[in-house]
Amino acid sequence: MSVSRINNIGSRIAIGNREEALHPSALKAALAEFISTLIFVFAGQGSGIAFSKLTGDGVTTPTGLIVAALAHAFALFTAVSVGANISGGHVNPAVTFGAFVGGNITLFTGLLYWLAQLLGSTAACFLLKLSTGGLSAGPFALSSGVSVWNALVLEIVMTFGLVYTVYATAVDPKKGSLGTIAPLAIGFIVGANILVGGAFDGASMNPAVSFGPALVSWSWEAHWVYWAGPLIGGGLAGVVYELFFISHSHEQLPTTEY
Amino acid sequence: MSVSRINNIGSRIAIGNREEALHPSALKAALAEFISTLIFVFAGQGSGIAFSKLTGDGVTTPTGLIVAALAHAFALFTAVSVGANISGGHVNPAVTFGAFVGGNITLFTGLLYWLAQLLGSTAACFLLKLSTGGLSAGPFALSSGVSVWNALVLEIVMTFGLVYTVYATAVDPKKGSLGTIAPLAIGFIVGANILVGGAFDGASMNPAVSFGPALVSWSWEAHWVYWAGPLIGGGLAGVVYELFFISHSHEQLPTTEY
Amino acid sequence: MSVSRINNIGSRIAIGNREEALHPSALKAALAEFISTLIFVFAGQGSGIAFSKLTGDGVTTPTGLIVAALAHAFALFTAVSVGANISGGHVNPAVTFGAFVGGNITLFTGLLYWLAQLLGSTAACFLLKLSTGGLSAGPFALSSGVSVWNALVLEIVMTFGLVYTVYATAVDPKKGSLGTIAPLAIGFIVGANILVGGAFDGASMNPAVSFGPALVSWSWEAHWVYWAGPLIGGGLAGVVYELFFISHSHEQLPTTEY
Amino acid sequence: MSVSRINNIGSRIAIGNREEALHPSALKAALAEFISTLIFVFAGQGSGIAFSKLTGDGVTTPTGLIVAALAHAFALFTAVSVGANISGGHVNPAVTFGAFVGGNITLFTGLLYWLAQLLGSTAACFLLKLSTGGLSAGPFALSSGVSVWNALVLEIVMTFGLVYTVYATAVDPKKGSLGTIAPLAIGFIVGANILVGGAFDGASMNPAVSFGPALVSWSWEAHWVYWAGPLIGGGLAGVVYELFFISHSHEQLPTTEY
Repeated sequence: MSVSRINNIGSRIAIGNREEALHPSALKAALAEFISTLIFVFAGQGSGIAFSKLTGDGVTTPTGLIVAALAHAFALFTAVSVGANISGGHVNPAVTFGAFVGGNITLFTGLLYWLAQLLGSTAACFLLKLSTGGLSAGPFALSSGVSVWNALVLEIVMTFGLVYTVYATAVDPKKGSLGTIAPLAIGFIVGANILVGGAFDGASMNPAVSFGPALVSWSWEAHWVYWAGPLIGGGLAGVVYELFFISHSHEQLPTTEY
Repeated sequence: MSVSRINNIGSRIAIGNREEALHPSALKAALAEFISTLIFVFAGQGSGIAFSKLTGDGVTTPTGLIVAALAHAFALFTAVSVGANISGGHVNPAVTFGAFVGGNITLFTGLLYWLAQLLGSTAACFLLKLSTGGLSAGPFALSSGVSVWNALVLEIVMTFGLVYTVYATAVDPKKGSLGTIAPLAIGFIVGANILVGGAFDGASMNPAVSFGPALVSWSWEAHWVYWAGPLIGGGLAGVVYELFFISHSHEQLPTTEY
Repeated sequence: MSVSRINNIGSRIAIGNREEALHPSALKAALAEFISTLIFVFAGQGSGIAFSKLTGDGVTTPTGLIVAALAHAFALFTAVSVGANISGGHVNPAVTFGAFVGGNITLFTGLLYWLAQLLGSTAACFLLKLSTGGLSAGPFALSSGVSVWNALVLEIVMTFGLVYTVYATAVDPKKGSLGTIAPLAIGFIVGANILVGGAFDGASMNPAVSFGPALVSWSWEAHWVYWAGPLIGGGLAGVVYELFFISHSHEQLPTTEY
Repeated sequence: MSVSRINNIGSRIAIGNREEALHPSALKAALAEFISTLIFVFAGQGSGIAFSKLTGDGVTTPTGLIVAALAHAFALFTAVSVGANISGGHVNPAVTFGAFVGGNITLFTGLLYWLAQLLGSTAACFLLKLSTGGLSAGPFALSSGVSVWNALVLEIVMTFGLVYTVYATAVDPKKGSLGTIAPLAIGFIVGANILVGGAFDGASMNPAVSFGPALVSWSWEAHWVYWAGPLIGGGLAGVVYELFFISHSHEQLPTTEY
């Protein structure tokens, strides 16, 4: 791989501007991200609240991980599917960051997506409180014996897999018609990784998913891991996939098409 | 969003007439709704009866919720798929109401669908009695510590997600070919939400699903919640999706095409 | 529905002849049915053997039903998918009977399919014995308190749902391209119904599935229920779907196109 | 089937050469195999490590098998999907061998795939150690009472089903567009077979999956079974499918198209 190829990646990063991010189609996309993230986090965090209510335990038991894996896989499939034709169905700041790194979304529109995702997650946590008579999901935390560096590697590897999957099934022009394969692969890899990482650090792979519960319970311990890990893993996946597997001509992609 | 846009939604509501609802294609659609709802409720309620028989408990345990989530997700996928080309595969009065609010089904045909769905659910409950030597599913009920207002919010949020999913994957003209994504997303979001709401109010999201067991066991306590919540949530989803995400020209959609 | 419409169904039943059933493409289809049924029964019955080995119990516990539902749903999806383009992926004498009743397969080819399915199931049971050091699946049996009439109704209703699903997703010309929806709906409805019927009569819905274990363990008690129920339910589904939902012109369908 | 037909299979085996295997597109395919196998083994083996951490037991319990089946089915679906358009998504030396036997990949490119798959599995095992503070998956082993011959038959039968599925859904030109059905069927049959074989020999069906943990824990007892079984089963499936179900004209298929 030549230096010019790497430069080419750098030159694909796009800033955009405030006007573009306030265009009606960008606002529609942000609304779609808000609703998709709300639906996803409501089911994901809600299943954890329900499990804790029924067992009195935390979710870190094998049955709890099965519940979490199914709830997240099923709900993420749906959240990505319903957003696909409007916003691309990111539902995850790490996915948006990976898209930005690969030049598939501008900085301004990306920040708008982040805002919508964080608000959607927060709204889901408040609606869960209202629906359950005041219960709330505990924040993401490290299991005993797991260091922040273990968790950082874990989140990097898992989110690399997730964003690589997004690139291969939803961004790569070779993928053919979008169809069912992209949301299924995205939902399933998150479900599978929860069965791994759930026992160690809660398996977030998504800063919005960890932000809502942290805000509602105002607990920020080791919170940075749940941003740094996914963003590093997602960014890396964007760079790797663009560098090795996508051949671009020089024209700019439409930024919200992803 | 301008006032004329909102008026436009109002003007899209269609009444239809008795003749239309008795047209052979409407009757075929009603028969398809009857059979789809029967298949769905037989599996969903039946899995609850089976679980109670095996454990002596109610289904409100983590394993019981996993059983309920899989049974409903799998059976609803099937029920929507088999009805898709005949009736649109509503299988749920809240979906039909959401379609009505968005102008995608007439009042008369919608009422015919409701009748078919309620009959299908009731027939499933009677067939379950016959198959199991007299056992029957308990009616939907609030868990201890859950108020009707908690449950109302819960049903509204969950059914909003469900009917929003129906709109995004099956009604929106941008969706492309119907394919597999619509029934999968519909089945999966119900499965995921059962893992949340199952611990609090049984997670109905569907008045027909709660009507059959209430009728067979003649138990109507808090039954209104299982109508009000889904209809409010479903109606809201229809309005939101039509307002923000679908651009209509002025011609009327064919009412049963959905 | 007029009498001529009913006569029309009767007239669609096709006998075929011995030569046709010995044609290379019919023999290929039979080989495909043999292999698909082997794959399906190996996973379905094998998961029951594995569960019994691990727990010392029968599979009639909630976790056992989850295992059975997943194993059958996943393996049937695969078995139908791999057979779809060669034999239609029946994998079930009740499906073949339903196809015969609706005029979509001839008597002779149908009998060849039955033979292949029964041999495939038997081969799977023998290979399981060989793989597990002599363990074998117990035969299907009625749970205590379940009469043969209960089980008969149960098998009829469940198999009606299954064969109705086959018709709606794989036979109906309105279905569009076969794609993924048919094997998914077929696999999922069987998975869902196992979560119901597994607690009462083992939830066969498929005479080949009950034949293999009965033969290997030479236990035929109430075995007729596992033929009569599925064949009645499957035949009924074929008649109902053809009568109400398929409009035929008078030409004969190609018999193996199913 | 005539002798010339069998000869024809033999004549389809292709050796290729070193230059071809070092061509950029072959190297890209190898990189894709490396990443796909890494993603798959990280989730599959990782879920076992997580389960053992939570329970203190090995995974050979019913709940452990459910966890393993879901993790492998979901992650393999994803791994095949993300590789499909670049390398064909083998993710398994037995699949590559089956493709080689049927003349769908050359010897040199196949060996490159094997290397990439073994490295991907090994990398996944090292990353798991790094993420979990030093835990590692135990190697595949025979349960008590299971002979190597039992396990050999088991691996042959299960891998036959897997590679037959690959042929029917991804190689056969009758399959139509690749779509979602191939990775789903491949992921699901592995998930189903884990519910069978997991209780007896760990249910590998994939030499790369057993190689990584054996290397990391340096434990090679009965390791040959996990190569011989899958290669025999996979090769057999390639021969059977090519012989009976694919009609070739005499031109050579492009070797990496699979």
